[in-house]
Amino acid sequence: MSISPADQARGNHLRRDFLGVLAYVELSAFERLSSDARYSPTLHDRAVLGRLAVIEFQHFELVCAKLAELGLEPEDAMLPFQPPVDSFHERTRPADWYESLMKAYVIDTVSADFFQAISGFVDADTAGLIGRIQSAGDASAVLRERLRAALADDPRLASRLALWARRLLGEALTLAQLVSREHAFLRGLTGAVGAGGGDATRGLTVELAAAHSRRMSQLGLAG
Amino acid sequence: MSISPADQARGNHLRRDFLGVLAYVELSAFERLSSDARYSPTLHDRAVLGRLAVIEFQHFELVCAKLAELGLEPEDAMLPFQPPVDSFHERTRPADWYESLMKAYVIDTVSADFFQAISGFVDADTAGLIGRIQSAGDASAVLRERLRAALADDPRLASRLALWARRLLGEALTLAQLVSREHAFLRGLTGAVGAGGGDATRGLTVELAAAHSRRMSQLGLAG
Repeated sequence: MSISPADQARGNHLRRDFLGVLAYVELSAFERLSSDARYSPTLHDRAVLGRLAVIEFQHFELVCAKLAELGLEPEDAMLPFQPPVDSFHERTRPADWYESLMKAYVIDTVSADFFQAISGFVDADTAGLIGRIQSAGDASAVLRERLRAALADDPRLASRLALWARRLLGEALTLAQLVSREHAFLRGLTGAVGAGGGDATRGLTVELAAAHSRRMSQLGLAG
Repeated sequence: MSISPADQARGNHLRRDFLGVLAYVELSAFERLSSDARYSPTLHDRAVLGRLAVIEFQHFELVCAKLAELGLEPEDAMLPFQPPVDSFHERTRPADWYESLMKAYVIDTVSADFFQAISGFVDADTAGLIGRIQSAGDASAVLRERLRAALADDPRLASRLALWARRLLGEALTLAQLVSREHAFLRGLTGAVGAGGGDATRGLTVELAAAHSRRMSQLGLAG
């Protein structure tokens, strides 16, 4: 599972890209989530979304600290990922608070799965950081419960949110593929998810979509 | 300086309003600052503004904890202040990142002066909370240095930002007067800033404007 000595240079490059995309995903999630919080139906919900945004920012700071520890500039590591991640956000502007909530949930869960899948192929230290970030938040649970409550209050939301979640998943997978292809994350994944040495990108895509679909079913939505 | 026993009921009311407006100012500053952060010229600046936004949110949580400790619902305490504070933000939408920076600086400093002026008239416990919030942040210093750097880089910014800061001050004072008049904060202030029992609101306004003007001069701007 670990990087062989011969692959050291590639390993360092992979780690920088990995931490860079993770940092930028967290920073942009923080900004979008806290902007969207303003449209919450109640002050209580604004505070809840604000708290989740702050958790994203704390993750961002953890990743930046790790980059700095490795002697890398966080800005340099993030820059290549700014255009595709920004484009994802531009293409998925929530129309209201419920769509924001679903967007936060999809980003949170799909990116967790994505980084988890990749973390088996980075060094143990970096993988440990991912583990800490994943377990620290509990953001997913808060979002899932809030979505469940919203769907119970207004069953007409279900079809709209199911459609919206499918669109979000599509855009998230496109982003994951783009980032993976351009930054070679998935070369390390070949054989792991793409059984028999098949197309790793395709393997991961199928896996991410299946996990998403299970979560939507748990919300009572057609995934 | 402290509330007399006969004024206990009024004191409780004052405290709830005081904490309510403070909480809502912090929450909305958090949301606006973190939304505006997205327009920062560099990723480094985005991270700096994000960090300041997170500090605002932590203050918001401190104030909510105090309200809860007093057996008060934070949402109820904040609600009366939502329309005037939201209106302030609607009337002062920054056109770019430099205007966001100045807005954050003006809100941070003028509201600090405002809450400081009022804190002499609330109970010691509440006044202590204000003190902790004021000293914890250092947000003003960060913003001031960032503005100073921006003005040094582009001297043409000066006249635009001076004009913008005057407009922000005008809107902030309007908000302070509105909030004070409707919620009777300033009755306690009579005689303190309005010398000879004069108009307390006017006294405080003059004081806030003078302090702002000194800060603008320090930035090399005509206040």
